[in-house]
Amino acid sequence: MEPRIIDITELALRDAHQSLIATRLGIDDMTGACADLDEAGYWSIECWGGATYDACIRYLNEDPWERLRTFKKLMPKTPLQMLLRGQNLLGYRHYQDEVVERFCQKSAENGIGVFRIFDALNDLRNIETSVRAVKNAGGHAQGTISYTVSPIHTTALFVDQARRLQDMGVDSICVKDMAALIKPQAAYELVRGIKEACGPALRVHLHVHSTTGVTLVSLMKAVEAGVDCVDTAVSSMSLGPGHNPTESFIEMLEGTGFATRVDMERVQRVKRHFMNVLERYSEFQSKVTGVETELFKSQIPGGMLSNMENQLRQQGAGDRMQEVLDEIPLVRRDTGYVPLVTPSSQIVGTQAVLNVLMGRYAVLTGEFADLMLGYYGKGPGEKNPEVVEMAHRHAGKQPITCRPADLLQPEWQKLRSEALALEGCNGSDEDVLTYAMFPQVAPKFFATRHEGPRNLGRDPLTGVSETKPAEGHQGAITGPITYAVTLSGRQHKVTVAPYQ
Amino acid sequence: MEPRIIDITELALRDAHQSLIATRLGIDDMTGACADLDEAGYWSIECWGGATYDACIRYLNEDPWERLRTFKKLMPKTPLQMLLRGQNLLGYRHYQDEVVERFCQKSAENGIGVFRIFDALNDLRNIETSVRAVKNAGGHAQGTISYTVSPIHTTALFVDQARRLQDMGVDSICVKDMAALIKPQAAYELVRGIKEACGPALRVHLHVHSTTGVTLVSLMKAVEAGVDCVDTAVSSMSLGPGHNPTESFIEMLEGTGFATRVDMERVQRVKRHFMNVLERYSEFQSKVTGVETELFKSQIPGGMLSNMENQLRQQGAGDRMQEVLDEIPLVRRDTGYVPLVTPSSQIVGTQAVLNVLMGRYAVLTGEFADLMLGYYGKGPGEKNPEVVEMAHRHAGKQPITCRPADLLQPEWQKLRSEALALEGCNGSDEDVLTYAMFPQVAPKFFATRHEGPRNLGRDPLTGVSETKPAEGHQGAITGPITYAVTLSGRQHKVTVAPYQ
Repeated sequence: MEPRIIDITELALRDAHQSLIATRLGIDDMTGACADLDEAGYWSIECWGGATYDACIRYLNEDPWERLRTFKKLMPKTPLQMLLRGQNLLGYRHYQDEVVERFCQKSAENGIGVFRIFDALNDLRNIETSVRAVKNAGGHAQGTISYTVSPIHTTALFVDQARRLQDMGVDSICVKDMAALIKPQAAYELVRGIKEACGPALRVHLHVHSTTGVTLVSLMKAVEAGVDCVDTAVSSMSLGPGHNPTESFIEMLEGTGFATRVDMERVQRVKRHFMNVLERYSEFQSKVTGVETELFKSQIPGGMLSNMENQLRQQGAGDRMQEVLDEIPLVRRDTGYVPLVTPSSQIVGTQAVLNVLMGRYAVLTGEFADLMLGYYGKGPGEKNPEVVEMAHRHAGKQPITCRPADLLQPEWQKLRSEALALEGCNGSDEDVLTYAMFPQVAPKFFATRHEGPRNLGRDPLTGVSETKPAEGHQGAITGPITYAVTLSGRQHKVTVAPYQ
Repeated sequence: MEPRIIDITELALRDAHQSLIATRLGIDDMTGACADLDEAGYWSIECWGGATYDACIRYLNEDPWERLRTFKKLMPKTPLQMLLRGQNLLGYRHYQDEVVERFCQKSAENGIGVFRIFDALNDLRNIETSVRAVKNAGGHAQGTISYTVSPIHTTALFVDQARRLQDMGVDSICVKDMAALIKPQAAYELVRGIKEACGPALRVHLHVHSTTGVTLVSLMKAVEAGVDCVDTAVSSMSLGPGHNPTESFIEMLEGTGFATRVDMERVQRVKRHFMNVLERYSEFQSKVTGVETELFKSQIPGGMLSNMENQLRQQGAGDRMQEVLDEIPLVRRDTGYVPLVTPSSQIVGTQAVLNVLMGRYAVLTGEFADLMLGYYGKGPGEKNPEVVEMAHRHAGKQPITCRPADLLQPEWQKLRSEALALEGCNGSDEDVLTYAMFPQVAPKFFATRHEGPRNLGRDPLTGVSETKPAEGHQGAITGPITYAVTLSGRQHKVTVAPYQ
């Protein structure tokens, strides 16, 4: 009997280096692997989106759109894939629909074939505009379930979300387990449940990290349950807070009745390429290299942990980490058990730090108040009404139930005028989008872009504050977030972001 | 329904540090974890044998018997387990039966409860004396299958070996996969096959390394196939050339209908203990930290690779590694596909190096000739008769088919007299055994033993040649092997061992 084919999405060019070396990989350290990647037989190659856009303009003086065009030229055969945060795009706020539509259109034009679209709260209203825009642009719209574990997150709840994504018209479903929480039996039941509810024709993909050490087994169980495609990273760019090794996934299927189409010789050439490259990026390397099963309790992604440790140390409270870890599940419960992923992980984590330092909910960040009042969308569970009331009083804003982006006025023309006024802006829609998503970083980038990409593996910066690796490498560069902290009715501007 | 209980053997105190830090862990870095290990609910704790005996007297100035008594005192509840190389004991030659019997008796008296007994060639005649002696001493005799992959190593062949071990009267069977070669489906079929052939009452244990990245999945499949006990190591002492993390194994069973009795709180305390300890041993740490799937082809354990690289460099042929890797499978085929584990891995590897450097079989090591002529026992397959004939001509010895130890004369009294004549020997049978197994190292150890154990984590040695870590950390310290190389009928004494 012919084995059933399991497809693979290779993560080396996006999530792998985002998770392992703080998204610092420069384009000229990737081009050498592209021919082998393109010929290897992957279903898709994730290579754009997530934190790569931010890292390109913030650290690498590299135009993310130019990077995408380079990839497309060097990998014409295999669909290129990006990670998109729904209505947030790749930024840290909601954008008005026209901006979302233009972003999706431009991404497709420049080479993206597969758009993996997620929302931190699993509020599908936050991804419907992107899904529609991607389909209008001729792309593959992958609807994503942000996986988490809580008393209310049952298999049935996630399966229902998959069915609603199917109704929305997505081309495939992705279960995205960014904190390596999905255990083998849960993976089996979820994939099986989605397949039964949505029918065999709707593709199911599974994205897992390897941090807790159990998820290669979960991939095996997902394969047995009927998964169509899994995400892995070439072994020299794998493990720790990253992903399971591509080669191990291929090898483990031997004799099982399942197989991949991926050419091991090509993969091993990619492996050797990155083995040599990575040595030069050791200064950015994640300190986490083994497995960490205590995450099953805290659910905090590794990078978020380091962020909070930094925050505590800056407050002279480095010894209170355990209290914060104990506080996080309580804060998360009050939010109605939001999944912890950018930006909810930062919002919940920071509020937990404040609760420990100042007393529970004595101080609320503006973001936490917004989360409680519905300004990020509708979460999965019931919020604690007392904390919602506090948020209302602190922030002086009403709770909302509509789609957050419905409150936004058309903004493209304004963003365009502002962008075009900047030195070095080339007037393209791509530049306007860069400015829209990173208004604080874009001006400097536009001004220095002509100097060309900077390779941090070869040419480390000299300024200490600038070369400091992003501690928040897991999940995202945690952007420059300035919190509006309202204390006894008076608002204070507090920047808790660990680096800029 | 109650979950089926899967037992765990914890490897932290033996194979984990042997694989990860060249067996250098000193006793005072282990005692602090013993109470938690003993209370955690493990089926057994592997803590003795393998290369630990050699390392104790060679590097740590520590009496291995005293170490064992310390363990027994600190861990009175949980059976202590050792790894025993059958008729080789913990040394590098065959011993006459009386020596084997006395060693097993003394090990049981000093605290060992479970004896895992293996032979590199899977020649059961090489383990029958130890099995009998262990049972006479009241110990648990675990008969071991050295797992390997070759055209002749079918599931049926291994199952037949298990049945013959059962006939021999072993208390349990262990499948020992020292090079991380066992894939999930193979693990399932082998465990299922043994259970069907030997009945449900005979316990089956599975020992795997993690080097290729696939073996936690293999453990899952073994569990589904009916395995009784698996070997893991606490996460801070796991992965790379080591083993799968205990915590990940426990967590991954959630919801599967299987569970362990191991207390996660205790395991996490052990984890933190070794996390802190290991930092001090970084100089001995294995350079391999990720996964290495190319092992599926070469089958060479990681440590053996470094050994061969050293040998080649010393000969000014550091660039010929690929030729050696290609030669090894050919040499192994000529031996009738011996498993590659101490000492066969060293013998085959060294011969492959000589073949590449001097021409194929232009020079034979004495050990390789002995292997071809049956002096290590009977291997699994047909040997290449031409190479057997060369071995016969080179070594001037006849091939044998009897049990190798049958050729040995009683030697205990002679060993005893020689040992007692050494300065510092305390006259005990234990000291005689130390001398018997390590005649070149014992004299110095006896003379300096009164100075007490040396902790290499805290007090590194100053002499460079002595502090150099054993490159052959995987599988074993590769002892001081002097080869008798016969070239054109003339014998030369050649020492290829990489360190002493």
